[in-house]
Amino acid sequence: MKKENMGKLRIIPLGGLEQIGMNITVFEYEDSIIVVDCGLAFPEDDMLGIDLVIPDVTYLKDNISKVKGFVITHGHEDHIGALPYVLKDINVPIYTTKLTMGIIENKLKEHNLLRTTRRKVVTHGQSINLGQFRIEFIKTNHSIQDASALAIYSPAGIVIHTGDFKVDYTPVFGDAIDLQRFAELGKKGVLALMSDSTNAERKGFTQSERTVGITFDHIFAEHQNTRIIIATFASNVDRVQQIINSAYKYRRKVVVEGRSMVNIISTASELGYLNVPENTLIEIDEMRNYPPEKMVLITTGSQGESMAALSRMAADVHRKVTIEPNDTIIFSSNPIPGNEKSVSRVINELSAKGANVIFQDAHVSGHACQEELKLIYSLVKPKYAIPVHGEYRHLRANSEVAMSLGIPSEDVFIIQSGDVLELSEESARVADKVHTGAILVDGLGVGDVGNIVLRDRQHLAEDGIIIVVLTLEKGTNRLLAGPDIVSRGFVYVRESESLMEEARQAMVESVERCLSGRYADWNRIKLAIRDSMNDFIWRKTKRRPMIIPIIMDVDR
Amino acid sequence: MKKENMGKLRIIPLGGLEQIGMNITVFEYEDSIIVVDCGLAFPEDDMLGIDLVIPDVTYLKDNISKVKGFVITHGHEDHIGALPYVLKDINVPIYTTKLTMGIIENKLKEHNLLRTTRRKVVTHGQSINLGQFRIEFIKTNHSIQDASALAIYSPAGIVIHTGDFKVDYTPVFGDAIDLQRFAELGKKGVLALMSDSTNAERKGFTQSERTVGITFDHIFAEHQNTRIIIATFASNVDRVQQIINSAYKYRRKVVVEGRSMVNIISTASELGYLNVPENTLIEIDEMRNYPPEKMVLITTGSQGESMAALSRMAADVHRKVTIEPNDTIIFSSNPIPGNEKSVSRVINELSAKGANVIFQDAHVSGHACQEELKLIYSLVKPKYAIPVHGEYRHLRANSEVAMSLGIPSEDVFIIQSGDVLELSEESARVADKVHTGAILVDGLGVGDVGNIVLRDRQHLAEDGIIIVVLTLEKGTNRLLAGPDIVSRGFVYVRESESLMEEARQAMVESVERCLSGRYADWNRIKLAIRDSMNDFIWRKTKRRPMIIPIIMDVDR
Repeated sequence: MKKENMGKLRIIPLGGLEQIGMNITVFEYEDSIIVVDCGLAFPEDDMLGIDLVIPDVTYLKDNISKVKGFVITHGHEDHIGALPYVLKDINVPIYTTKLTMGIIENKLKEHNLLRTTRRKVVTHGQSINLGQFRIEFIKTNHSIQDASALAIYSPAGIVIHTGDFKVDYTPVFGDAIDLQRFAELGKKGVLALMSDSTNAERKGFTQSERTVGITFDHIFAEHQNTRIIIATFASNVDRVQQIINSAYKYRRKVVVEGRSMVNIISTASELGYLNVPENTLIEIDEMRNYPPEKMVLITTGSQGESMAALSRMAADVHRKVTIEPNDTIIFSSNPIPGNEKSVSRVINELSAKGANVIFQDAHVSGHACQEELKLIYSLVKPKYAIPVHGEYRHLRANSEVAMSLGIPSEDVFIIQSGDVLELSEESARVADKVHTGAILVDGLGVGDVGNIVLRDRQHLAEDGIIIVVLTLEKGTNRLLAGPDIVSRGFVYVRESESLMEEARQAMVESVERCLSGRYADWNRIKLAIRDSMNDFIWRKTKRRPMIIPIIMDVDR
Repeated sequence: MKKENMGKLRIIPLGGLEQIGMNITVFEYEDSIIVVDCGLAFPEDDMLGIDLVIPDVTYLKDNISKVKGFVITHGHEDHIGALPYVLKDINVPIYTTKLTMGIIENKLKEHNLLRTTRRKVVTHGQSINLGQFRIEFIKTNHSIQDASALAIYSPAGIVIHTGDFKVDYTPVFGDAIDLQRFAELGKKGVLALMSDSTNAERKGFTQSERTVGITFDHIFAEHQNTRIIIATFASNVDRVQQIINSAYKYRRKVVVEGRSMVNIISTASELGYLNVPENTLIEIDEMRNYPPEKMVLITTGSQGESMAALSRMAADVHRKVTIEPNDTIIFSSNPIPGNEKSVSRVINELSAKGANVIFQDAHVSGHACQEELKLIYSLVKPKYAIPVHGEYRHLRANSEVAMSLGIPSEDVFIIQSGDVLELSEESARVADKVHTGAILVDGLGVGDVGNIVLRDRQHLAEDGIIIVVLTLEKGTNRLLAGPDIVSRGFVYVRESESLMEEARQAMVESVERCLSGRYADWNRIKLAIRDSMNDFIWRKTKRRPMIIPIIMDVDR
């Protein structure tokens, strides 16, 4: 251990700053490391063909002997989704609450990691000791049950990490956020507060989840003669509970559709987080036994995801559900930034089928707005504020909230992934930078698609590809066959025959010129083909397809 | 002329329904056709590499002798942008208001069409006669000046087309919408009202453009010690006017940056639509002569477009403007659906540079909300309502507004592009369907990229390409060279050498098996290569790159 690290708490986010998703934060004190969350990110628009993105955990590999465990705040993908990948290298125990663990276990099963992963379920109020750390789980509210804030006790002081949270005084299930505990810890003295910035640009207070239940009741009362279909996030068990409550009240049967929705509901029911009255849930195949006005369908697809159940219904390719002109369809969700157009497409398709689509006022956020952030800062009264979870604009908005409450600007840290924030009771500073990165997952490949491959995909996507092949005689370099031209994604060849023939002629000339020259090595020929094809195509079309020259040679 | 068309007005949208953009509508009465607007659409996300989309005007070509002219409602791209392409086939005169014509002429110049295009400037209140039609231009308000509604008089009755509009009682420049004329025509009797559906889902009334000026004044008052940079839509001349007004009031100089912004401002100034006090506008190179707090920069890039001036400033690649920690940057715009993430990226970059970014409350829409639609319906009292401009959800919301005012549902027509709506005083019905379509423009190519090419680009974008080449002896089909494998956008080859070598071995085996068989024609060999490569790659990577087998042959 480096001497200068003695007696200091080091906080090192390996992801999750400057972006939504991929939350993973290292807490290090001398010989001990704990890791808070281990999430994935969904690919950006320019990451063509990528399925998901996970954090580079080189820093953990390099310090593997120190790593005591993963401490997980809640069961959303951006906090747990990278675990199956990271555990392969960093096989340390996972500590989290019951429902969160249930969701993680589903993942571990899929990846065949259940047997080899140590796990410990923790309850709110309980603490665990990991090396020099003690971690206390504190009840919070969020759009998934069993979310926790963490009080991380280190010899350098207490850090509170809120996880994703909101303040819900009237939650649907379980207790409200444990504000008293935040206050108690604040009274003791908290070194730093790391709080959720997602909604930090929004004024006011996020509404209680229960208000959505009231909206459902109103909608059910007003639409007693139609089928009701509700799309929402699979993981929002409280939302599902409230749909079931309204369905029960209005004597409707409930069908659940969409794989992730079915999975989470079954996990949540088994673990006691969902209370379904008998004879309420029915199988999708039983739907035909009930009139439409006695049915509620809960489905995935609230983000317009093309393969999700609601999108398939809208596109008329769902095997079991056909949208009818009188259906009432509720989006119990807001589009996540980037999904607006997909959601709109689905709304258009549904309303073109005559369905009545309701996409306003049937959702509340799971994240704290400015007044809630102020509340937590005021209870905790941390020395340092470290906004987390969000893009830069959100971190900055959170830091402005902190400063508006009197925290001096030099005690507010907007840090970046890889920054090593060193804290002691006397001081805090970004002391170092460690390697971080985003690893792209494409199919089975983890990390085999990098910037070069992505750049090629972008190039191919933009203007397609032209392949020029020719065969030379070994030794003499005499042209035996070709140049032939094959293109894809460039022009519709049947309607551009003359263009392609002209291009071929230009290649013949270019290759012959090259071969008649003195130094006709393959690199030179390839370069000549690429240059002259590029010129020709740009002149004719103002496009820049990828040009691939391929030369074969044959013994004579 | 078909007998059954006698005495009937036919309204045929060739685009603009079921989508935002590409507005073009045919009005046909016996031997006369007029065309209202001729707009482009911007490519959808899956139209990879496409620059813009224009309507297929086969119907106009087939009826060219009837076509009397283009009547243009206002100067936005989605209403004028396809003119330079369509005029090449349909060379008829253009009729529109002064500023709109000025903007169109800029386009015609770029396409070298100014000399060959007949043009007539019309003022509000004026009418023109085109065949059996008379068209009256009626003043409206919109986010560009000189917008018009059209009263289209035909022997079958009067149709009013609102164009894009809002009701602004206190416009920045010129008159408010001519509500009296709408009322007068309504009193006379209007057969059909075609009205703007863009904001038909929104309750209430769109705020006056002037309210943005008040916001600017407040922001200027509060930020007297910093530079101010304002991004907005180039074509919103009133917005620019209000920025100039606030700048003048607070004694700041104004710099205009971004090619489209500079163009429109110069056209608008020349034509008298913009009033710039002397010594207010300065060149960008003169900025260094003034302290930052005496400067306002008006710029393009409010939609996060990657090549626009503001995005280049945010990314630190603008040649003349560097963002400083104290800059106040205002987005005087809302993100157009689909642009949310790009805008957010620019906001993040700007605020990471320490700039203070204001992106709320400095914009109003240019489109009518529900109360404005009700106002126009109530003044015009049309027999038929035909919602236009918008996706299906918007058209439907507009039709619900119409029905809420007592127009019977059978007199409300949500039509699709290509529908022929036949109207007479007695009846209205969709009587026919004509060919329509979207023509993709990519570089110089107009229509040479179609579905097949786009599908190939999507395939290439998703998983890249693998090319398998081999040379055979002519006649004997003996393998002389290869199979060689070249890939792009699939894996980073240097780190996947063993995978690629295994793939090559699999190809060798597959080709040899094929050649040793009895019927080894090229198609069979190509099929075998494609199948076995697909299998191999899917098994190893769960990806599906495009596989291109190429065979050459050589005389021996």
